[in-house]
Amino acid sequence: MGPDETHGSTALLTDHYELTMLASSLSDGTASRPCVFEVFARRLPDGRRYGVVAGTNRLLDAIGDFRFTDREITQLASTAVVDDATLDWLAEYRFRGDIDGYAEGELYFPGSPILTVRATFAEGVVLETLALSVLNHDSAIASAAARMSSAAHGRPIIEMGGRRTHEYAAVAAARAAYLAGFATTSNLEAGRRYGIPTGGTVAHAFMLLHDTEEDAFRAQVAKMGADTTLLVDTYDITQGIETAVRVAGPELGAIRIDSGDVGVLARKAREQLDSLGARDTRIVVSGDLDEHAIAALRAEPADAYGVGTSLVTGSGAPTAGMVYKLVEVDGRPVAKRSENKASRGGQKAALRRHKPTGTALEEVVYPCAAPPEPGEYDRLLHLPLMRGGEPVENLPTLDDARALLRRRLVSLPWEGLKLSRGEPAIPTVFP
Amino acid sequence: MGPDETHGSTALLTDHYELTMLASSLSDGTASRPCVFEVFARRLPDGRRYGVVAGTNRLLDAIGDFRFTDREITQLASTAVVDDATLDWLAEYRFRGDIDGYAEGELYFPGSPILTVRATFAEGVVLETLALSVLNHDSAIASAAARMSSAAHGRPIIEMGGRRTHEYAAVAAARAAYLAGFATTSNLEAGRRYGIPTGGTVAHAFMLLHDTEEDAFRAQVAKMGADTTLLVDTYDITQGIETAVRVAGPELGAIRIDSGDVGVLARKAREQLDSLGARDTRIVVSGDLDEHAIAALRAEPADAYGVGTSLVTGSGAPTAGMVYKLVEVDGRPVAKRSENKASRGGQKAALRRHKPTGTALEEVVYPCAAPPEPGEYDRLLHLPLMRGGEPVENLPTLDDARALLRRRLVSLPWEGLKLSRGEPAIPTVFP
Repeated sequence: MGPDETHGSTALLTDHYELTMLASSLSDGTASRPCVFEVFARRLPDGRRYGVVAGTNRLLDAIGDFRFTDREITQLASTAVVDDATLDWLAEYRFRGDIDGYAEGELYFPGSPILTVRATFAEGVVLETLALSVLNHDSAIASAAARMSSAAHGRPIIEMGGRRTHEYAAVAAARAAYLAGFATTSNLEAGRRYGIPTGGTVAHAFMLLHDTEEDAFRAQVAKMGADTTLLVDTYDITQGIETAVRVAGPELGAIRIDSGDVGVLARKAREQLDSLGARDTRIVVSGDLDEHAIAALRAEPADAYGVGTSLVTGSGAPTAGMVYKLVEVDGRPVAKRSENKASRGGQKAALRRHKPTGTALEEVVYPCAAPPEPGEYDRLLHLPLMRGGEPVENLPTLDDARALLRRRLVSLPWEGLKLSRGEPAIPTVFP
Repeated sequence: MGPDETHGSTALLTDHYELTMLASSLSDGTASRPCVFEVFARRLPDGRRYGVVAGTNRLLDAIGDFRFTDREITQLASTAVVDDATLDWLAEYRFRGDIDGYAEGELYFPGSPILTVRATFAEGVVLETLALSVLNHDSAIASAAARMSSAAHGRPIIEMGGRRTHEYAAVAAARAAYLAGFATTSNLEAGRRYGIPTGGTVAHAFMLLHDTEEDAFRAQVAKMGADTTLLVDTYDITQGIETAVRVAGPELGAIRIDSGDVGVLARKAREQLDSLGARDTRIVVSGDLDEHAIAALRAEPADAYGVGTSLVTGSGAPTAGMVYKLVEVDGRPVAKRSENKASRGGQKAALRRHKPTGTALEEVVYPCAAPPEPGEYDRLLHLPLMRGGEPVENLPTLDDARALLRRRLVSLPWEGLKLSRGEPAIPTVFP
C-alpha cells in the first residue's frame, strides 16, 4: 500500500478551488455540515455500451496519503492560497469519513453511483480532484481494455502502451488493462507495484544493432532460449521466418509481426511455419491494434496481440467523464438547477436487476431513504470501502476485480458486447 | 530538479524488452557499439498543422534519476527479468552519453529530429520508454494548448483539467498548457513544482452547501473580497448576477458561467452587469470548451476561458505518436525495411528556412554528415542538451519555452494557425 509519488503525500494533486472553498466554509461555519458527495458519469463515452469501474483501490491508498506535511503547508503559505487558520486545519487533516461504492471490476452505466463519500463538507470537498483523476483515468482505460479482451475471444493480449502516455499514467494503465483481462504488460513498474506479469523480448533496434538478422536471432536465442519470440519483420518477413526457424529450430516459441497487413501476413506466416515443421510456434501480432482490428483478426492464425496506443488512450475515450457532486447537506437533498443534465439530489445506492438466467435487465439507482424491495435476481452494488477514514478489511484485490469483471461481462445482454456504437446495454432507472 | 516519484528512481518506468535487449547485447558484445537514436513523429495527428515540443526538461531530469537502486535490482532479480551479469551492469548504470534536440516550445513537423541520443547501444536503448512517455504526453498536450491559445486571441485561459486525467499526468499537463500560453492552472502541485500561477474560487458544491445563493456569495466575499469570481449559474443566472452585484457591489471582480450556451449567456450577462453599474466585472466562461468553442466565442464578451477535458486529452490527439529509433550503429546508417513509413537512417539535424519577412518556409532535415550551407534566414534547430550524461549549463527554462513558442507561432504562414484540418503548415524536406 506504500505511496511512491510526491514523497508520500498526494495532498497537492488538488485543484486550488477546493482549498478556497474550504477556507470560506471554515470562516462561516458551514465547513462542519455533514455532507454526501457522489461520483457518477452522466453518460457513457459516445456509443459505448458499458463502463468498467477501475481505480478504487488506488484511490483508497491515495486518500490514506492525503496529508499536508510541512512541505505542502509551506507551499500553500508562500503562495497565499489560503489563510493561516485554514493552513492549521489542513495540517491536522486526515479523512475520517465513510466511503461506499461499486467494486473495482463492476460495470457501470449512466448515473450509477460509483462512489459515495459521507463526511463533513470540509473533509469531503478536498478529495474531489484526486478522486476524479484516479477514477476517470483508470475507468476509461479499463472500459476500453474490456472491449479489446472481448474482441480477443480468449487469445492473450500484451499491454505495451506505456510509451504513448505519461510515464506514471502508464503504470496505472497497465493495472487497468490487467484488471480488464490483459495477460501481461511491458511495464516493469506495474510489475513491481501490482505484481502484474511483465514480458517482452526485442525491438527492431536490436535487429538493426546486429550486422545481420541471423546474428541478432542467434544472440537472442543464445540468451533467451529457443522458446523466445523472434521479431521477423525487420527486413523481409519470409526470409526472416526461414532464418528464425533455422536458428531456433522448430521448437521456436513465437514470431512477432509488427507492421503491414498483419492478418494476411499471419496467414502466410502460419503456412510457412507449418511447412518448416514449426507447428507449435506461435504468432504474435502488434502495431496499431484496437478492439476493431482485434475483432477483424479473429479468423486469422494470430495467437496473441500486442496493444499499445489504443489502450492507453482509451481507444477514443481517454477519460470517463465522471463528476463528484454534492448531493446532500445536513440530510437534505441538494442539486444544481439543470436543463439537460441529470442532477438528482440525495444519497443514493443501486441494484442491478437480472433475469432468472442471470442476464442483466436494468440498473436501479434509488434514494437510500427509500430502498426498493430487492428481488430474487437483484444484486446490490454498493460495498463499504472506508469506515472512519480507514479502508475496510478484506477489500477486494486486483485479482478479485479481474475475476469480477469476467463474470459481469457474461451477465450483459448479448448486444451489450457488440463493438459497434449503441445505447447502454441496460437502462438506468430512477424509481 | 528534485525527483518526486518512485523514491527518486525512474528506472522501472521502462518496457521489459529494453532490458532483455540489453541482456542479449551484453552477452554477444554488441552492447558497447556506439549508436545514435532519434526521436521523431512520422506524422502529425490527423489534420493538425504543427506540433509543439514539450517535456524536454522533464525528460532530462528523469534521465538524471534513472538509476537502478537496490529496490529496482531486487524486483528485477525476483521476477527473473534478466540475468545476474545484466543486473550488475544496471546497478552501475548512469547515462553518460550526449543528447541534442529541439528546444522546448519549438514547433515540429513530420520527421523533425526532436531528440538525438548518442551513446552505446546499452546506455541508449534503456531510455527509450521513458523518453517517449514524457515527450509523447507533454507534446500532445502543448500542441492542443497552443491551438487554444491562438483561438483565445490574447484572452487568458485557465487550465482546469486535472480531474479528467491521471493524477500525475495532470501536473505535467498543467506545465505543458502554461508553456503553450495558458495564464494559470488549478493544479496546486504544478504550482509547487514549476512555479506556475494557480487559481480558483468555488465550485457548485459551495453554493449548494449554503442555504441560499446569497449566503454563499456573502461567505465568499467576506473571505476573498469583492475582487473574487462569483459562480452565478447554480440556480437562475439573471437572479444570480443580481444577487452577486448586490452582495459584492459593482467592484465585483468577475462572474463565472459554467453551463448552458455560454456565448448567449455571456452577452446577456454583460448587458445586465453594465446596467447594474458593474462595468469592470469580468465574465469567465467554462464548461466543455475546446479550441473551436473558444474561437466561436471571439465576438462574445467573455473575458477569460476555463478549459479542462479537451486540454488534458489533447483535444482529440492524446498522444503525439513519437518514436525512438536506432538510426546509426558504429557510424553506419541503419533503418528497418519500410513500405510506407518514412524510415531514414543516419544521424540527422534540422534547420528551418524562412522568408526575409520571417515567415517559415520549410523544415530541412539533413544528414549530419552532409549539412547544407545555412542561408541568411535559416535557423538551426538542434541545441546541445546533455554532454557526458550531464545537462548543459543554462538550459532554457519553462518561461523561455513559453516565450519561444509565442515567437514561433508568429513565424508560421497564416494558414498554419487555422483550426480546420489541413496539411502541415510547412513541408519537411530531406535533401
